[in-house]
Amino acid sequence: MELAWINQLRSRPGSELLGDDAAVIGEMLYTVDMLAEGVDFLLDRTDPMLIGRKALAVNLSDIAAMGGVPTSVLIALTLPKDKEPLRLTERLYTGMLPLLDHWNIPIAGGDTNTWAGGLVLAITAIGRTTDRGALRRSGGKPGDRIFVTGPLGGSILGKHLTFEPRISEALFLNKHYEIHAAIDISDGLSLDLFRMATESRLGATLFEEFIPVASDAVELAGQTGKTPIEHALSDGEDFELLLAVPPRDAEKLLAEQPLRKSFHVTLYEIGELTVDRDLKIRDRNGAVRPLPPKGFVHD
Amino acid sequence: MELAWINQLRSRPGSELLGDDAAVIGEMLYTVDMLAEGVDFLLDRTDPMLIGRKALAVNLSDIAAMGGVPTSVLIALTLPKDKEPLRLTERLYTGMLPLLDHWNIPIAGGDTNTWAGGLVLAITAIGRTTDRGALRRSGGKPGDRIFVTGPLGGSILGKHLTFEPRISEALFLNKHYEIHAAIDISDGLSLDLFRMATESRLGATLFEEFIPVASDAVELAGQTGKTPIEHALSDGEDFELLLAVPPRDAEKLLAEQPLRKSFHVTLYEIGELTVDRDLKIRDRNGAVRPLPPKGFVHD
Repeated sequence: MELAWINQLRSRPGSELLGDDAAVIGEMLYTVDMLAEGVDFLLDRTDPMLIGRKALAVNLSDIAAMGGVPTSVLIALTLPKDKEPLRLTERLYTGMLPLLDHWNIPIAGGDTNTWAGGLVLAITAIGRTTDRGALRRSGGKPGDRIFVTGPLGGSILGKHLTFEPRISEALFLNKHYEIHAAIDISDGLSLDLFRMATESRLGATLFEEFIPVASDAVELAGQTGKTPIEHALSDGEDFELLLAVPPRDAEKLLAEQPLRKSFHVTLYEIGELTVDRDLKIRDRNGAVRPLPPKGFVHD
Repeated sequence: MELAWINQLRSRPGSELLGDDAAVIGEMLYTVDMLAEGVDFLLDRTDPMLIGRKALAVNLSDIAAMGGVPTSVLIALTLPKDKEPLRLTERLYTGMLPLLDHWNIPIAGGDTNTWAGGLVLAITAIGRTTDRGALRRSGGKPGDRIFVTGPLGGSILGKHLTFEPRISEALFLNKHYEIHAAIDISDGLSLDLFRMATESRLGATLFEEFIPVASDAVELAGQTGKTPIEHALSDGEDFELLLAVPPRDAEKLLAEQPLRKSFHVTLYEIGELTVDRDLKIRDRNGAVRPLPPKGFVHD
């Protein structure tokens, strides 16, 4: 539905601002994400500190995917009035403050209300691009190598609450290498790759054996009957960066692994962008099959 | 509760950004307001177009109160999945678009989700100050005259859904006159006056006979048993501007009524800021009584 509305609103001036992880206006970046009880978290099963942290972190991840520095946030909360809303607010904020303090981000606005319904958090993050400009989904070129910043799949077992937004990593890569396009993996590798490829007016082929599969994807596969690679391809909420890198810089990245020392992050080359606009996956035997863009679609 | 949290977070760097209708960072203005079903509107009694319009307009009113020009908005919606969410989204946006188009405001971000709960709208508005700088609540001086841009009270009978954000009016006044402080009347004249006076480290005295009472306040008084002036003092959601103006410019404003011709808006002088930090009201016989800051407090 989000996509349908983006299409419907595309006739407006300024509609080119949509379609990236954050809107770029001059040097500024803007993004909003809303999390709702029962959809994005279960209030009776999850520590509200982690819920607050996640609501903030998903927005910071959007700023990261644009190669930006977060500069301020606005925090809107609607709290269930029968669940100790003052204490709940305190917990939510307590979960956010370490990330805000780490990145030295001021709170530029807040709105806190109570009602008879469930918990809803809407956080707007504002950022600034560097002199390297914004990383966009649409900048991919044919032959670009596709990179990912970490293992994928099974995030529901924990990582979706505890991930670190890849702000420093994106800034470092954007400063020292040529990065053509970027997106954060919020809705699943195949779906977010589809978005990047589509915005770049290209297709993509993934190399199955090079896709890093998280141990949580293996564990989850034991419960679901799906394969670990299926989880890695479509689970979403990994919040790793997906990058399109020209071949020369791709080779440098693989040789240098520049994120390992400072950030303990390994870069994985998992495929390439293609002129052929289909999404495909090639298995270890060289057999190529179509890759349907599956993932978490906000319905 | 909003105030309690503002106090609690005041120890953070950047906390000086809170306490105005919008945060001022450089030339930029930021504000967020969240509206929830059953608290701010009744979905089964109100046209969703008007709900969408209101959610946007309250934010634009905050930008207006800062003497700013709105430059973009981010729109986050959480929709009840059993109430035709696609059609509801369309109606909400259709209600917003005329205001967005009138002010030429691009949508810089959106997030649309469905859930089992009620309708929640969180809109972030971004604006820019002019070379006259931002109008703040805290700039009032002793002896400043207090002005309001229109009749007050009874907005629940309709104006809370249909008001025009006083953007042009604020820009005009800020450009051509000396305005010391401003706030929009969202939570009630006495409460918002209290906020302006408190932020200016002053008190205020209102002159009861000069307070413009809306015809809706009179009508509502017929149903509630309260007096029209009580409604004018504490109803809220009038979204008129409350201004603190030095005496010389106050006299010019009264003589010139500069908003009448272009905006059909009459300026009313209704009181003055005082060194004495109490809030008072003087009746037509000269008797002065305390004015408790009553109004809509987000609980």
